[in-house]
Amino acid sequence: MPTVNLNYGKLKNSYLFANIAERVNAYSALHPEQHLLRLGIGDVTQPLTPSVIAALHEAVDMQSRSDTFHGYMSECGYAPLRSAIAGYYRQRNVILKDSEVFVSSGASDELGDILHLFERSLDVILMEPAYPAYADANVMDGRMIHYMDASDANGFTPPPPQESFQALIYICSPNNPTGAVFTRDLLKQWVDYANQTGSVILFDAAYEVFISEADIPRSIYEIEGAKTCAIEISSLSKTAGFTGTRCGYTVIPEELVRDDMNLNAMWVRNRTTRTNGVSFIVQHGALAVFSDRGQKEVQELLSVYRMNAKNFMKALDEAGLKYFGGRNSPYIWMKCPDGMSGWETFDRLLEQAQIIGTPGEGFGKCGAGWFRFSMFADQKDIEKAGSRIGAVLK
Amino acid sequence: MPTVNLNYGKLKNSYLFANIAERVNAYSALHPEQHLLRLGIGDVTQPLTPSVIAALHEAVDMQSRSDTFHGYMSECGYAPLRSAIAGYYRQRNVILKDSEVFVSSGASDELGDILHLFERSLDVILMEPAYPAYADANVMDGRMIHYMDASDANGFTPPPPQESFQALIYICSPNNPTGAVFTRDLLKQWVDYANQTGSVILFDAAYEVFISEADIPRSIYEIEGAKTCAIEISSLSKTAGFTGTRCGYTVIPEELVRDDMNLNAMWVRNRTTRTNGVSFIVQHGALAVFSDRGQKEVQELLSVYRMNAKNFMKALDEAGLKYFGGRNSPYIWMKCPDGMSGWETFDRLLEQAQIIGTPGEGFGKCGAGWFRFSMFADQKDIEKAGSRIGAVLK
Repeated sequence: MPTVNLNYGKLKNSYLFANIAERVNAYSALHPEQHLLRLGIGDVTQPLTPSVIAALHEAVDMQSRSDTFHGYMSECGYAPLRSAIAGYYRQRNVILKDSEVFVSSGASDELGDILHLFERSLDVILMEPAYPAYADANVMDGRMIHYMDASDANGFTPPPPQESFQALIYICSPNNPTGAVFTRDLLKQWVDYANQTGSVILFDAAYEVFISEADIPRSIYEIEGAKTCAIEISSLSKTAGFTGTRCGYTVIPEELVRDDMNLNAMWVRNRTTRTNGVSFIVQHGALAVFSDRGQKEVQELLSVYRMNAKNFMKALDEAGLKYFGGRNSPYIWMKCPDGMSGWETFDRLLEQAQIIGTPGEGFGKCGAGWFRFSMFADQKDIEKAGSRIGAVLK
Repeated sequence: MPTVNLNYGKLKNSYLFANIAERVNAYSALHPEQHLLRLGIGDVTQPLTPSVIAALHEAVDMQSRSDTFHGYMSECGYAPLRSAIAGYYRQRNVILKDSEVFVSSGASDELGDILHLFERSLDVILMEPAYPAYADANVMDGRMIHYMDASDANGFTPPPPQESFQALIYICSPNNPTGAVFTRDLLKQWVDYANQTGSVILFDAAYEVFISEADIPRSIYEIEGAKTCAIEISSLSKTAGFTGTRCGYTVIPEELVRDDMNLNAMWVRNRTTRTNGVSFIVQHGALAVFSDRGQKEVQELLSVYRMNAKNFMKALDEAGLKYFGGRNSPYIWMKCPDGMSGWETFDRLLEQAQIIGTPGEGFGKCGAGWFRFSMFADQKDIEKAGSRIGAVLK
């Protein structure tokens, strides 16, 4: 009888970022004088905003005195933060109870943890190209994955399948890596499909704050019927620069019931058994993001990345290069010209323009021949990359 | 076909702390003038130490500037912290590679997460009384639990069973709730049993710092053979007051192999898929705990709780009350006198002496007739409780 979870043996090794690092290191060794333009990894570069910094310092001071010291936190989240997040949703006319909002250590943590709620025999619907951890976390649980092609033909936002089956459905909008956004109509089709089949949607809203068009939903709960079929997972990583500070949130509506089990109550039980909550210091800092001043600062911070996207899209337009994303997303997903693969494009951009991006092949087979640029980059690097790309890829 | 993890339906509801809160609230409503002596919950009361506070402020400042800003952390832990923890073990002649040490958000989080490495068909050996989450986390995974009685008869530290079977074995020493410690000889028996049967020991070392007797092991790796059969889970919660700040660590030796799978490599894969690491701010603060100054401060901080234990044991001795723990542990596990149940003792202590503790019944059937006092309490409260208990329980 096996001792360990043998599903780990089914994981494929991903050498994507190791392979990129190897090529970059080899180039740098030969050309140590060259400044590299890093548009590869989706990590933020702007520091935390002043009101968050002030709140973090305040929280640290509170931990230094007996009368303000916080010990064990509420497992489901610090009450004022749960309330502030519910308030943030209310601004978009999404009405949630505080008890439907859970504080997490971030979306990447939660996307793995949340799977514990589901049977391992439940199938998964995954649209590729996708964030690789969606598939890996399910392979590790032994779930069967049905891949759907997101491609140029469907604008990288596929409609539900013809056949009806019950599944755990991943939707990421704005999408990583393609930057594509799901329209209201399309999301409504998915919500209806999930309710009809008894499926559950995991809606990854980590990039919602980049949506600039008013008619594109920023939450799945803007769609009628979503509260009976969807869990939404979001994060302050990209919104407020928390990639290294770690805080996110998850919404599980009380109306979400499967097999006569209430998923909100199940998650409360999961959290009270399996965690003692997110650090008080981090949660107190996160609370400042949702203040009026905090929200203004977030918009200023995001304006850097938005300007990056605007400038880089202009450069791609001038070069006649085709792409998705950028408008409602920090990612730009470029079609490699002249039938080049993502890796050929990677090598040419690195060697001839010192630009580092990510080959689409890293996000699944439909990513082949595409290339991701991250706008979480240094402003000057983006400007230089924009000024060089046309000459190299023409 | 089920959608959700139906094992959640098998969980029993625990009303322990809710029941305690209800009785305490009822008493307070009738006697609002009475100051309650809180020796119930195992949460710390002393604030973080000065060097940790300074490091936390420094980390917050680093997050405020582009040139010192930390984005995504290494999933397995901040390299200087992994190294410092390995150094902490080295002081006790336990030699670990940095790569065998993983930083976690705390022991309670890790005790749930680590179960992902194991087959759900693997049996569990659990000695009761025990921290209730051990059982609950396994019930939620659908594992079969074999309970062993820890009792007065075996000093609350049972030897391995006669029959040989392969299992996941929980050992918590110093124990929560009983305060009992496993001797070197007894741990050696368990390590041999695990190696012979192909079992894996989960060693919960969260209270190791309270061990004052030199011949009691503070790490399972002080026992020969442990590196091929044991994972150790520890925490800064009780050591350095991190219950609300959240940081712990886990050791998985490279020699630990089952079913031809290396558990250290499996955990690296788990972490890189399912988390983006612990907050930089928290890890930078945790690093200060392991500095020379940090370690001195920790000893000062712990002297408060140790003095509490000494004073309270003296009071119990004078009253002729029988107990385990206290010497190498922040918990004192008292035999309820006169055949009283834990709940009867609870009510009498609350009503006649304003002392709040925890009835042993909350930790499994072998806890019946016993009572836990936590020494993580206010010094004055401990003194008052000590001065009152003899009169009430004689």
